[in-house]
Amino acid sequence: PASGSKPKPPPVAHYNLNNVTITPNPLENRENILILTPMARFYQEYWDNLLKLSYPHELITLGFILPKTKEGNLATTQLQKQIAKTQKTGPEKDRFKSIIILRQDFDPPLASQDESERHKMQNQKVRRAAMAKARNSLLFSTLGPSTSWVLWLDADVVETPPTLIQDLAKHDKPVIAPNCFQRFYNPETKAMDERPYDYNNWQDSPTAQEMAQHMDPDDILLEGYAEMATYRALMAKMAKPDGLLHEEVPLDGVGGAALLVKADVHRDGAMFPPFAFYHLIETEGFAKMAKRLGWQPVGLPNYKVYHYNE
Amino acid sequence: PASGSKPKPPPVAHYNLNNVTITPNPLENRENILILTPMARFYQEYWDNLLKLSYPHELITLGFILPKTKEGNLATTQLQKQIAKTQKTGPEKDRFKSIIILRQDFDPPLASQDESERHKMQNQKVRRAAMAKARNSLLFSTLGPSTSWVLWLDADVVETPPTLIQDLAKHDKPVIAPNCFQRFYNPETKAMDERPYDYNNWQDSPTAQEMAQHMDPDDILLEGYAEMATYRALMAKMAKPDGLLHEEVPLDGVGGAALLVKADVHRDGAMFPPFAFYHLIETEGFAKMAKRLGWQPVGLPNYKVYHYNE
Ligand SMILES: Nc1nc2c(ncn2[C@@H]2O[C@H](COP(=O)(O)OP(=O)(O)O)[C@@H](O)[C@H]2O)c(=O)[nH]1
Ligand SMILES: Nc1nc2c(ncn2[C@@H]2O[C@H](COP(=O)(O)OP(=O)(O)O)[C@@H](O)[C@H]2O)c(=O)[nH]1
Ligand SMILES: [Mn+2]
Ligand SMILES: [Mn+2]
Repeated sequence: PASGSKPKPPPVAHYNLNNVTITPNPLENRENILILTPMARFYQEYWDNLLKLSYPHELITLGFILPKTKEGNLATTQLQKQIAKTQKTGPEKDRFKSIIILRQDFDPPLASQDESERHKMQNQKVRRAAMAKARNSLLFSTLGPSTSWVLWLDADVVETPPTLIQDLAKHDKPVIAPNCFQRFYNPETKAMDERPYDYNNWQDSPTAQEMAQHMDPDDILLEGYAEMATYRALMAKMAKPDGLLHEEVPLDGVGGAALLVKADVHRDGAMFPPFAFYHLIETEGFAKMAKRLGWQPVGLPNYKVYHYNE
Repeated sequence: PASGSKPKPPPVAHYNLNNVTITPNPLENRENILILTPMARFYQEYWDNLLKLSYPHELITLGFILPKTKEGNLATTQLQKQIAKTQKTGPEKDRFKSIIILRQDFDPPLASQDESERHKMQNQKVRRAAMAKARNSLLFSTLGPSTSWVLWLDADVVETPPTLIQDLAKHDKPVIAPNCFQRFYNPETKAMDERPYDYNNWQDSPTAQEMAQHMDPDDILLEGYAEMATYRALMAKMAKPDGLLHEEVPLDGVGGAALLVKADVHRDGAMFPPFAFYHLIETEGFAKMAKRLGWQPVGLPNYKVYHYNE
C-alpha cells in the first residue's frame, strides 16, 4: 500500500455448523439469539419490554426493517434515539451485542397503516406479500453462521414475560408460538380485560382443505374473515384460565407477532412465501414450508404475550 | 467491567437497502459480490481460476460449504491451505475481502461422490434435496445487507473468462446463467474437443407440463434422463459456433454450476426448494421461484464456462 505499511491479511472465518448448538438450555450454552422486527411504527412500550428480557443482552443481536414512508422515517428516528440511549449511555447489562437497521427498498402497498384499512380482506393478499418480502429481506440479510435461534417479534408486541426466550426455547421445538392477546377496557365489567388478538396460529380443518381444492392456484385462504369461514381450530380460542402455562398444541399455521424459530429451520430454506404456497402466504405459508421440510410447529395456548391496543 | 475500563458501546449498523446499488456496471459502482460454492471435492484448477477473476478481490467475499465426510474433510484441508497462501503470503491484489467456510451439519445422502452414482435417476431426488439444503444454509448464513450480487460457482467449474462477473452483470438481469461445457479428448479427431455438460438450463415444453400434471404432488421432473423425456429446449444444445457471445435466451430452469443472481432476488425470498416446487427441485425450483416473484431468468448459450472432466 501507498503508506508502505504491511497490509494485514483479510479475515478468514471458519464455522462448523455442528458446533453452533441449538438446545433447550440456550443460556447455559451461551447460544446467540437474533431478534427480528419489521417495524412500521415505533412504540416505546415495545422497546421497554425488549430491555426487560432477561436473556443476556450480549448474546442478542437485533434486526429491524422499516418502510421508506413518512411513518417509517419517523419510526426510524424514534428507534435510533432509543438505541443510542441504550447502547451508549444506558447500563452495560442493557446493551445488545449488535444492532442492524434496514430500510425497505420497495414501496409498501397500502398508504394507510390504520387497523381498519390493514385488515380489509381485499387488501390482505398484496399487504401480506409485501410483509413477507420485508421479513425475507430482514432474515436473509441478518442471519449469520453463529445464530442459534431467531425470535420474530412484531413492533406492536408490548408485553411479554421477561423470560420469553428461555421459556420458549425450553420446549426444544423447531417453531414455537406463544398466544398473542390484547388488553382492553371492558365497559361491561368496568375493568381492564383481555381478548385474543392473533388469529394466524391455527390447526387446519377439512373445510379449509376443501376450500383450497376449489381455488385458483394463486388464491390464498385467510383467517378471521366471516365471508371465508374456514372452521380451523384457532389457538387464540384455546386459552384456558386454569390451563397449564406450558401446554403444547401442534399448529399448521403460525403468526409472526411472537415466534421462536431454530436457525436451522431457516437455514434449510424455510422463508415467508410472498406468493400462494399451498394457498397460504407469509407467516402461515412459513408454517407450511417448515412442515414440508420436516419441522412441526407448536403453539402454547396459555402462554401469553400482548399486542398494542390502537 | 472488572478491569475498571470504560466499556466501548457495541456496534450499531444502519443500512439503507436503497443505497446498495445493483447495476450493470458493478465495478465502477464498487458493488460487493458474494461468491458461493458448495464443495465436496477440492480442485486446484477451480482455485487458480478464481484467483484469475479480474473483478477487484477486495469487493469479493467467498463462502464455502463442505460436507462432514472423509472426502469433505480432505477438501477442507486442501481449501484452507490455498486460502492461507492467498490471504497471507500472496500478492495483495489476489486477496479477497473475507472468506467464510461452513461445514454442513447433516449427512450427505449418498456414500459415493462418483459421477455414475451421483447421476443415477433414483438417487436424484434425495441427492438434490440435500444439495438444496446445503445451498440454502450457505446462502442464509452469508448474505449480508451490503451484498449486491451472488455468484454461484460450483467447485468443479475450472475455467471461466476472467471477466465473468463484469460480463454477466452487464446484462442487468436478475438471474443469468452462462453455458456450462466440458473439455474432453476426442478419440475420433485425436484432438481436444468440448461438449455440453449442464442440462439444468432449459426452456419449458408442453410435454414436461403435461407430465407434471399427472404426477404425485411430491414427484419431481428431472432433465437428461431417457426414461423421462421432457422435450424441453436445453440451453446446452443452443450454443452456435458463429453465435453472438452475448446472445440471451429466456430460461425456465437453471443450473447452479455458474449463476449470477441479484441479491434482491434472494432477499425477496428466492431459495433452493429442497422439496417438490411445481415438480421442480433445487436450482431448477429456484428458477421457478424467482419467476413466481416476478424475476425472469436468462441464459447465454454462447458464453461458456467449463466443468472438470473426472
Ligand atoms: N418493514 C415493514 N414493516 C411493517 C409494514 N407494515 C407493518 N409492518 C410491521 O409488521 C408487523 C406486523 O404488522 P401489523 O400491521 O401490526 O399486523 P397485524 O397486527 O397483523 O395487523 C408490525 O411490527 C408492523 O409494525 C411495512 O410495510 N414494512
Ligand atoms: N456441501 C456439499 N457440497 C456438495 C455435496 N455434493 C456435491 N457438492 C458440491 O456441489 C456442487 C455440485 O455437485 P456435483 O456433484 O458436481 O453436481 P453435478 O456436476 O451436477 O453432478 C459441486 O461444487 C460439488 O463439489 C454435498 O453433499 N455437500
Ligand atoms: Mn400488529
Ligand atoms: Mn459438478
